[in-house]
Amino acid sequence: MKKILQSEIPIKIRFSDTDAMGVVWHGNYLRFFEDAREAFGIKFGLTYLDVYNKGFFTPIVKSSVEHKSPINYGEEVIAIAKLHPTPSAKIIFDFEIINKSTGKLSATGHTTQVFLGVETREMELIKPSFYVEWENKLGIKV
Amino acid sequence: MKKILQSEIPIKIRFSDTDAMGVVWHGNYLRFFEDAREAFGIKFGLTYLDVYNKGFFTPIVKSSVEHKSPINYGEEVIAIAKLHPTPSAKIIFDFEIINKSTGKLSATGHTTQVFLGVETREMELIKPSFYVEWENKLGIKV
Amino acid sequence: MKKILQSEIPIKIRFSDTDAMGVVWHGNYLRFFEDAREAFGIKFGLTYLDVYNKGFFTPIVKSSVEHKSPINYGEEVIAIAKLHPTPSAKIIFDFEIINKSTGKLSATGHTTQVFLGVETREMELIKPSFYVEWENKLGIKV
Amino acid sequence: MKKILQSEIPIKIRFSDTDAMGVVWHGNYLRFFEDAREAFGIKFGLTYLDVYNKGFFTPIVKSSVEHKSPINYGEEVIAIAKLHPTPSAKIIFDFEIINKSTGKLSATGHTTQVFLGVETREMELIKPSFYVEWENKLGIKV
Repeated sequence: MKKILQSEIPIKIRFSDTDAMGVVWHGNYLRFFEDAREAFGIKFGLTYLDVYNKGFFTPIVKSSVEHKSPINYGEEVIAIAKLHPTPSAKIIFDFEIINKSTGKLSATGHTTQVFLGVETREMELIKPSFYVEWENKLGIKV
Repeated sequence: MKKILQSEIPIKIRFSDTDAMGVVWHGNYLRFFEDAREAFGIKFGLTYLDVYNKGFFTPIVKSSVEHKSPINYGEEVIAIAKLHPTPSAKIIFDFEIINKSTGKLSATGHTTQVFLGVETREMELIKPSFYVEWENKLGIKV
Repeated sequence: MKKILQSEIPIKIRFSDTDAMGVVWHGNYLRFFEDAREAFGIKFGLTYLDVYNKGFFTPIVKSSVEHKSPINYGEEVIAIAKLHPTPSAKIIFDFEIINKSTGKLSATGHTTQVFLGVETREMELIKPSFYVEWENKLGIKV
Repeated sequence: MKKILQSEIPIKIRFSDTDAMGVVWHGNYLRFFEDAREAFGIKFGLTYLDVYNKGFFTPIVKSSVEHKSPINYGEEVIAIAKLHPTPSAKIIFDFEIINKSTGKLSATGHTTQVFLGVETREMELIKPSFYVEWENKLGIKV
């Protein structure tokens, strides 16, 4: 059975997150995904700064969102991030945004990140050794 | 041969669009897509307000972005929107973001919108008649 | 001695909050002020929705920020809001943004809000009665 | 008589600029000010990159906005920047945001920037020589 690493974080909706339809503007869900990735990083030792200190940026090369039900101002959401195991030199996350106030699933989504050398600004074609060690330590190597 | 409706709009990059990696933050491409949809709407008579005046919102239910090369502050981009014909009650756009300063393709993407009655707040299962007329007028009915 | 109502809320910095100088983009402090006002509203019963339910919007008519020291990604801040008593039909807040990671004061600021009837869309020239009652209850009437 | 340097730039309102009150969120005016400063920089040779190439950042240390009338989605604004002459080592701008669709003044505001050495990260206490030369060239030295 496969081990899935997962983190959860509550997010309060800002008034500035809403749009003239009275709900959270669709593009802001990518900020919730960012919060979810960061919470994941803190929980499992893989924050932006952890990775940067190993010599890498991990820019987003692909993202997608599927909206199921809108979020109103005053509601709170839970952002869930699950690491999606992959043999390639990528970090793939699956997300769920739950409307805590209604219990409804508000959105799902995915992001794909690659490893970019801070010095070289070149994309790594194989997983950096620090990341393989991290996967081994967490017991999630594919 | 199929007729493709297409619009183009130049966008200047704001300093506030950038992030600590020194390039445009990935989530801001959804704003460029928004600009591209709006330019399309103005060119072909299908703006947010045109649609609203017919009694509909067209919320985004799905969006995706694929990043090819980063954009720096000081660069200008061209956002291209192409309407993707569909028989279902949806508006689907394909986007290209071109880095005008380098000539490179920076990103591609898609958005899917549905028709929501302003009064009913219910999703339409078949294309509203105003939209079918619009398609007919433009000669793009699938 | 005057009673001062005050609230505090921690805020995590998002990667998307930063700009190409590597620090939080100056305009985002107005979002922190928004968080601070909302935390104040929750603590003292004066949220956006509380006010809306009484028939009023309270749009910002004036805002200012003074920056003392920058905030980096990965740092956390504390946003403090203090209600500034006034006899006029306004809600005035003083803010402090403290860099929790360094202990330094990052910024101070102010916002002024007026009361706008949800129905009339007219600005109230005297304090609405619900607000006077709220001030009396909290013991802060000027 | 004093010479005033001034620039103007049209800005289209994005749907994502609006909030649940149906108008442009107050914090977004700081983005319009940013557009206005950038247009000023392009017109008079003082862009962010011009200044950076001379070895300086010019972070905002103070900003303020006064709101006169709201802006709706679909409206266009003109952002006007006027350089406010000062003998101190600061760049001060006065702004006006005009609602082009209604002709009304929507907001006024100010920003103050200081000179920060890119290398030293220290604030300059006297105007850098490149800036004095620029002022002389433009005939606006105080």
